Amino acid sequence: MKYCSQCGESVEKVIPEGDNRHRFVCVTCEHIHYQNPRIIAGCLPVFEDQVLLCRRAIEPRKGYWTLPAGFLENGETTSDGALRETVEEANATVEIQNLYTVFSLPHISQVYMFFRAHLPAPQFSAGTESLEVELFSEADIPWDELSFPVITQTLEHFFDDRKNNNYPTRYINIDQSYLAR
Amino acid sequence: MKYCSQCGESVEKVIPEGDNRHRFVCVTCEHIHYQNPRIIAGCLPVFEDQVLLCRRAIEPRKGYWTLPAGFLENGETTSDGALRETVEEANATVEIQNLYTVFSLPHISQVYMFFRAHLPAPQFSAGTESLEVELFSEADIPWDELSFPVITQTLEHFFDDRKNNNYPTRYINIDQSYLAR
Repeated sequence: MKYCSQCGESVEKVIPEGDNRHRFVCVTCEHIHYQNPRIIAGCLPVFEDQVLLCRRAIEPRKGYWTLPAGFLENGETTSDGALRETVEEANATVEIQNLYTVFSLPHISQVYMFFRAHLPAPQFSAGTESLEVELFSEADIPWDELSFPVITQTLEHFFDDRKNNNYPTRYINIDQSYLAR
Repeated sequence: MKYCSQCGESVEKVIPEGDNRHRFVCVTCEHIHYQNPRIIAGCLPVFEDQVLLCRRAIEPRKGYWTLPAGFLENGETTSDGALRETVEEANATVEIQNLYTVFSLPHISQVYMFFRAHLPAPQFSAGTESLEVELFSEADIPWDELSFPVITQTLEHFFDDRKNNNYPTRYINIDQSYLAR
């Protein structure tokens, strides 16, 4: 950020009065520009004993397998965002079952929220951001070709929880120390 | 938003190529300015059979009782944000127990995340955004003077769940139809 979105003049990074963090503040109109973490909403679509994965057609991690997910938009609920992304990336219409995994990734200021979702029929196809979309049984999951740690962990928890048919919501912090392993 | 934060020239609201939503786009440098929902992180601090509430010193809902909560900052986890807000608003140091309630409020593009938290000792005081901070037993909760529906619902679920000593995470959408009741 270099310019004020309200008046077009320059901003500088200062700690506003009464605050304790650096913010972009307009030198002319004094507007404070807060920047906050973004939410990525997605689904874990399940058809019978298989889960639906998408192979990414875009960077980052192009060519790697992922769950359908993307940035939550203004004006939509998190569950609606997850459903929308599942349509956009996999042309799949699912039914939300429960909020399943929530990850904080402070190093990139993101919060991921995945919903476990029922895929009622094996009907899907690659959206514009996917190279291909496929159903995988547990034995066939391409563990070494998954896109992000949040995908790996969500799938690990799912196959573990499936043994007990109990899927509690999990909150997990993923920080640099985890990523350095 | 009137001006581009990258180059300072004017923005206009258009649907970028390959998109399906209106975005602020710079007419000069063509930078697309995405706007996304914000997260409010907070705690439900519990000391023995009582919960800690703060009476708001700021608008909106000044004078009404709330749980300590505020906008999540870049670079922090959601749980750390909840702990920070509990210190800032109530000068209380709590221990996170679990992610307890998650609310989507699409009409204001906010997602609330409350953590159930253990307050080990009755040590607290009003932070700058609170008029007073108090412990309340269930019988004494000022139900008609609570600040927001997310506070009311979190407390209702808590006292209900306490009967079974089981506190599952709940995901709840709050939309205009709920608020019009």
